[in-house]
Amino acid sequence: MSPEKNEAGRPGQVKTVTSVSNPVIKDIRALVSQRKRRKEAGLFVAEGLKLVTDAMQAGWPIRTLVFGGEVRDQPMVSKAAATARARGALVLDVSRAVLTSITRRDNPQMVVGVFEQQWAVPGKIAAKDAALWIGLDEVRDPGNLGTIVRTADAVGADGVVLIGDTTDPFAVEAVRATMGSIFYVPLVRMSRPEFLKWRTRWPGVVVGTHLKGETDYRKADYSGPVLLLMGTEQSGLPEEMADACSQLVRIPQAGKADSLNLAVATAVMLFEIKRKTLEL
Amino acid sequence: MSPEKNEAGRPGQVKTVTSVSNPVIKDIRALVSQRKRRKEAGLFVAEGLKLVTDAMQAGWPIRTLVFGGEVRDQPMVSKAAATARARGALVLDVSRAVLTSITRRDNPQMVVGVFEQQWAVPGKIAAKDAALWIGLDEVRDPGNLGTIVRTADAVGADGVVLIGDTTDPFAVEAVRATMGSIFYVPLVRMSRPEFLKWRTRWPGVVVGTHLKGETDYRKADYSGPVLLLMGTEQSGLPEEMADACSQLVRIPQAGKADSLNLAVATAVMLFEIKRKTLEL
Repeated sequence: MSPEKNEAGRPGQVKTVTSVSNPVIKDIRALVSQRKRRKEAGLFVAEGLKLVTDAMQAGWPIRTLVFGGEVRDQPMVSKAAATARARGALVLDVSRAVLTSITRRDNPQMVVGVFEQQWAVPGKIAAKDAALWIGLDEVRDPGNLGTIVRTADAVGADGVVLIGDTTDPFAVEAVRATMGSIFYVPLVRMSRPEFLKWRTRWPGVVVGTHLKGETDYRKADYSGPVLLLMGTEQSGLPEEMADACSQLVRIPQAGKADSLNLAVATAVMLFEIKRKTLEL
Repeated sequence: MSPEKNEAGRPGQVKTVTSVSNPVIKDIRALVSQRKRRKEAGLFVAEGLKLVTDAMQAGWPIRTLVFGGEVRDQPMVSKAAATARARGALVLDVSRAVLTSITRRDNPQMVVGVFEQQWAVPGKIAAKDAALWIGLDEVRDPGNLGTIVRTADAVGADGVVLIGDTTDPFAVEAVRATMGSIFYVPLVRMSRPEFLKWRTRWPGVVVGTHLKGETDYRKADYSGPVLLLMGTEQSGLPEEMADACSQLVRIPQAGKADSLNLAVATAVMLFEIKRKTLEL
């Protein structure tokens, strides 16, 4: 399906909505608040003109565009609405109360988009030209996940594998934390057994950070394709995942606190891995 | 005043509270929700047994300890309560409803402490033995600020200067994000003019990250004392702050997104600065 048209190839409708109990608005609120609904529908919500514009520019299929009547005449908003409509999306011109009900803020975002989730296909990952993937085992915090996707984009990583029971990358907070990078970084979901099987075909090193790591992160081997494996916020990589690594490394720390934030530790690793090759 | 005693040198009282409208509980809620109240009172709230215990171990003066009746008999809780009481704090044994009202969560933390804010004195910073300070100009997000303090601790930085109109490091979200590091990393507040004056006495390099930075962050001079200067999330360092730097550096990025998360960029810089010296 071309991103330029809906299935019928017709431009989408434009409607005015002032009631917070409008069924379409209720559906959007459910997508914001319930992971279950996002999963069933295969949809998610991006808040704010920048994110919505980024998503459309990256070719992500848009289902619904919502904007506040008070920003209707802003050029960027009417342009976004025209693009969404041309791609067959439903376009809603709504009251401030409706936007407040969706974004759950007194000072709401004035533009909100409903998009189709996009997931990369595991079978296509371990291609010979893959240079850097990140595996996240059971990451819990949407902000951490979004920030990691943003950093993955910044270092030019090829994608992120979400392993096991991770938080939803399409939660509003996660999407927001990516600052739009989610529209460019391929995401894959795998169970732990699926990951462990897939890992056996990985053509390069598999590096994990671990308390038991004996190699300083500055001295590990990052030549060839690197799969960086990071564990959960509370307890790091479990035994079976640590065993799947070809190298366990540690990031030395000097302070009283016992650890780094997960997104920070991942970033320190990614910039170290790309240290010799990163160029703008 | 010794942290072991209150001003009268007497152990604090223990009271049972079941009403969410108890005036002491109302005061604590105000400290959680209002920066103004925290500033006026010079107090803040730490949530959770680990943070409260960390704060007391680090010698931070405690005013009030609150715990849920259901955890009263847990050894760590009764030990914390005994310590708080010995230091003259008011100790409150409260209902779940009271804790829910304080922590604003259905699944509340069972231990909460009210502590006195502690700020370092600017005059004492630029000592000859200072190796690494971080200046944050108008950081906005409490999670970012807390994460930066946590990373500052991890790399053994000497302290953090909060410049101008920054978010409150004693907000509950910021304290939580430090994971206890806030009790070990000296914090200083300065206006921009105060900072610019203080900067003239800095004995080493002043490094800022900036879009206009011509030096790759991997090639800058980090010998001698380093003051790392980071700008606000939205727009980085303003002109007058960039001018105060002896080196402007950039972190190369490969992706579609335009920037790194502030806490991530700060961490990448800190680990680079400490790259040659960091040891465990």
